[in-house]
Amino acid sequence: MLDKKHIQHFESIVSKENVYSDKAHLIAYSYDATRTRFEPEAVVFPRDEQDISDILKYCDTHGIVITARGAGSGFTGGALPINGGIILGLEKHMNKILEIDMENMVAVVQPGVINMDLQRAVEAVGLMYPPDPASEEYSTLGGNVSENAGGMRAAKYGITKDYVMALRAVRANGDIIRAGKRTIKDVAGYNIAGILIASEGTLAILSELTLKLIPKPKFTKGYMGIFPSVDDAMNAVFKSLSAGANPVAMEFMDALVVQALKEKLGIDLPADAGALLIGDVDGNVPEEVAFQLETLEASFKENNAQEFIVAHDKEHRDELWIARRNASQSITIFGSKKLNEDISVPRSMLPEALKAIYAIGDKYNFKVPCFGHAGDGNIHVNVMVDGTSQEQLNKGHEAIEEIFQMVVDMGGTLSGEHGIGTSKAPFMGIAFNDEEIQLFKDLKNSFDPNNILNPGKMGLPS
Amino acid sequence: MLDKKHIQHFESIVSKENVYSDKAHLIAYSYDATRTRFEPEAVVFPRDEQDISDILKYCDTHGIVITARGAGSGFTGGALPINGGIILGLEKHMNKILEIDMENMVAVVQPGVINMDLQRAVEAVGLMYPPDPASEEYSTLGGNVSENAGGMRAAKYGITKDYVMALRAVRANGDIIRAGKRTIKDVAGYNIAGILIASEGTLAILSELTLKLIPKPKFTKGYMGIFPSVDDAMNAVFKSLSAGANPVAMEFMDALVVQALKEKLGIDLPADAGALLIGDVDGNVPEEVAFQLETLEASFKENNAQEFIVAHDKEHRDELWIARRNASQSITIFGSKKLNEDISVPRSMLPEALKAIYAIGDKYNFKVPCFGHAGDGNIHVNVMVDGTSQEQLNKGHEAIEEIFQMVVDMGGTLSGEHGIGTSKAPFMGIAFNDEEIQLFKDLKNSFDPNNILNPGKMGLPS
Repeated sequence: MLDKKHIQHFESIVSKENVYSDKAHLIAYSYDATRTRFEPEAVVFPRDEQDISDILKYCDTHGIVITARGAGSGFTGGALPINGGIILGLEKHMNKILEIDMENMVAVVQPGVINMDLQRAVEAVGLMYPPDPASEEYSTLGGNVSENAGGMRAAKYGITKDYVMALRAVRANGDIIRAGKRTIKDVAGYNIAGILIASEGTLAILSELTLKLIPKPKFTKGYMGIFPSVDDAMNAVFKSLSAGANPVAMEFMDALVVQALKEKLGIDLPADAGALLIGDVDGNVPEEVAFQLETLEASFKENNAQEFIVAHDKEHRDELWIARRNASQSITIFGSKKLNEDISVPRSMLPEALKAIYAIGDKYNFKVPCFGHAGDGNIHVNVMVDGTSQEQLNKGHEAIEEIFQMVVDMGGTLSGEHGIGTSKAPFMGIAFNDEEIQLFKDLKNSFDPNNILNPGKMGLPS
Repeated sequence: MLDKKHIQHFESIVSKENVYSDKAHLIAYSYDATRTRFEPEAVVFPRDEQDISDILKYCDTHGIVITARGAGSGFTGGALPINGGIILGLEKHMNKILEIDMENMVAVVQPGVINMDLQRAVEAVGLMYPPDPASEEYSTLGGNVSENAGGMRAAKYGITKDYVMALRAVRANGDIIRAGKRTIKDVAGYNIAGILIASEGTLAILSELTLKLIPKPKFTKGYMGIFPSVDDAMNAVFKSLSAGANPVAMEFMDALVVQALKEKLGIDLPADAGALLIGDVDGNVPEEVAFQLETLEASFKENNAQEFIVAHDKEHRDELWIARRNASQSITIFGSKKLNEDISVPRSMLPEALKAIYAIGDKYNFKVPCFGHAGDGNIHVNVMVDGTSQEQLNKGHEAIEEIFQMVVDMGGTLSGEHGIGTSKAPFMGIAFNDEEIQLFKDLKNSFDPNNILNPGKMGLPS
């Protein structure tokens, strides 16, 4: 446990009501979406950037480790205090939208702002913040930046890193750093904002984010393609995109997901559907929307689509999307525990990657329903196991390891949008060689020489 | 001079014909576009990545400094060997387009490939590589990445960093590092590719670039807006963009540039033109192009445009662009030497920034013609002085310093696309505080602890 004098010092910085050290609160802050549990020794809520600086400076001197936390909705343990120390809770006070600059199409926010709160605020004035992770209703923008969150709209609009113009952050020693500008171009000095994105709170604590906005598209339509097989659907993905289609989203569901949607939720889908692609297209003029739909339809049909459906109105579009929105919860019919990984491969490798994933599932005798953001090559692979059986869990992890090796061999990555944290840390050696991991260590050491910021994550030393 | 044994060792790595140490060649490799001169002690041409690794490992052990060089076309001295040592010439052997992957819309190139060679190769197969710096006919992609080059099309399509998917690079100690993937999403490990972009050859030597391509737009039209004043034109820039226009380019020329174009080149422009905006719009369908032009025209007219001209065919479009293409060379009528800086400000600050620039020019009694990429907030500011007068040069530099201070105060940056190198290094203290510069030093030290890679650039230690 943290010495009482440390608690008192934190209280002197942020005031008494902003430090928790009672058991109930420590338990409340010990979880994230991985459902594993590590108790912090205290939870401290900075009120502003200067508080963060004062806390970090003190911790750096006294060797107290710090894990930043927004909503704790991450899938890889980024916000878990695996080495104890303090949780720096950024959701309590540092949750304000500071500015929506319509002239430059930029928002300035604190790290604890919930993604959807920003989306709603900017849409109300005709703008859009595109990154829309599935956790958008509760995850924070600080967490989104720290994990470089993706989302449905990445196929056309890219991911969080494409919207970070500038960051303010606090180094382990308490130094306050400004990185980037509210300008489109900026090549003065090293790209510090670029290295802080996806660094999982291991290099610095974000204190302010300047995010790019775009004009809200005027026309949007939903579509669904129904395919006899996963292979046909995967071919349709990359062939339609290289034919010039630029859909906002192109989401994939395989035959097992279709089966689960029918069985568990009674969703009405064709009997012979072997895979679905669901998405939206948008544009400033109806003719652009029509161009996108025509390009998709032609490509889908060339790749054996049985049906290509265009939503005729908003209700119909919502109906088409029901399948995708319920994919994750429906697949529990195949096992009480899903080992959920978010691999990403070059899009042309999707057909081969899916074949290999199913073959690995067959080998281990697990169902592996897959769905996700096919339009950007990012697939959520779910190895379904009996969560009460340690043997099944072990075998499941072996299957995951084989999948990761295959993905990396195909030029893909361990994680498209969830990060590494603790849960993927054991697989870092598949993706990176010793020299590359040494560079990560050197970089971490240069920002945080006493290793107080989220140590032990991403396969780095505890 | 480099000891003969070092020269012999380099010859043993790359073979004798790939090492120059004769005076004529050392002079030939002592220049860049800044027209300042620093002779290297040898020029070494690696044939492949392994050569780079062998050279760096040797240099790291023996304390020999290395400056990477592509075409030597940089404006800020990035490729100048200001501390002697060797030039690593990447244009001789490492100049191949290795792959154009049409299925994933990705190109893999060596660092010495000339930008326009890639543009031509991908356009031949219906794709586009958008970054188009003015040096596109001779600058190399390795140099473009190292300086994060911009260009005309940045307003819609962004800059070099937006097209770097993955890099291979060699660290100072010879370690070969792979950073990034041929995938849209990748959040495994630190964003090493992100920090190498714009690092001016100070962190590692790039050995291979994987670059994103996009489908070539189907329809393009050129436009020109003629305004009575710079202020009206600058208002039209940010107001048209926040109204939803998304032009490929929106280039600006002020009254002095217009005067110079008329006087020096006899280009036919209206007598009362106080500023021009010239650019292109594009789209997949003609209606999108029309939407863009209508949005621009409405906004331009609301901001007092005297004329809004749409090119009726390719020849007419080329005619409109003549003014922009000749801006740089025409302004020499105002002084034999131009002190050329590429400041960038948030777009809404453009009207105020231009006013302040002219006021500084008046104070020092210099003409300061301005032109450039207004659509992304990046303006080329040219303080015109008599290059034979040291007093004028000194006063010119004072004016530049005042301009930088004003730009930074407005939330802008020292450099939109040229980098810092040596020429802007004296101004780093205007843009960054001691803590930020310390972070740059720590970062540099973590990649290159013996400081052999392009030391002394960006205000970092020699």
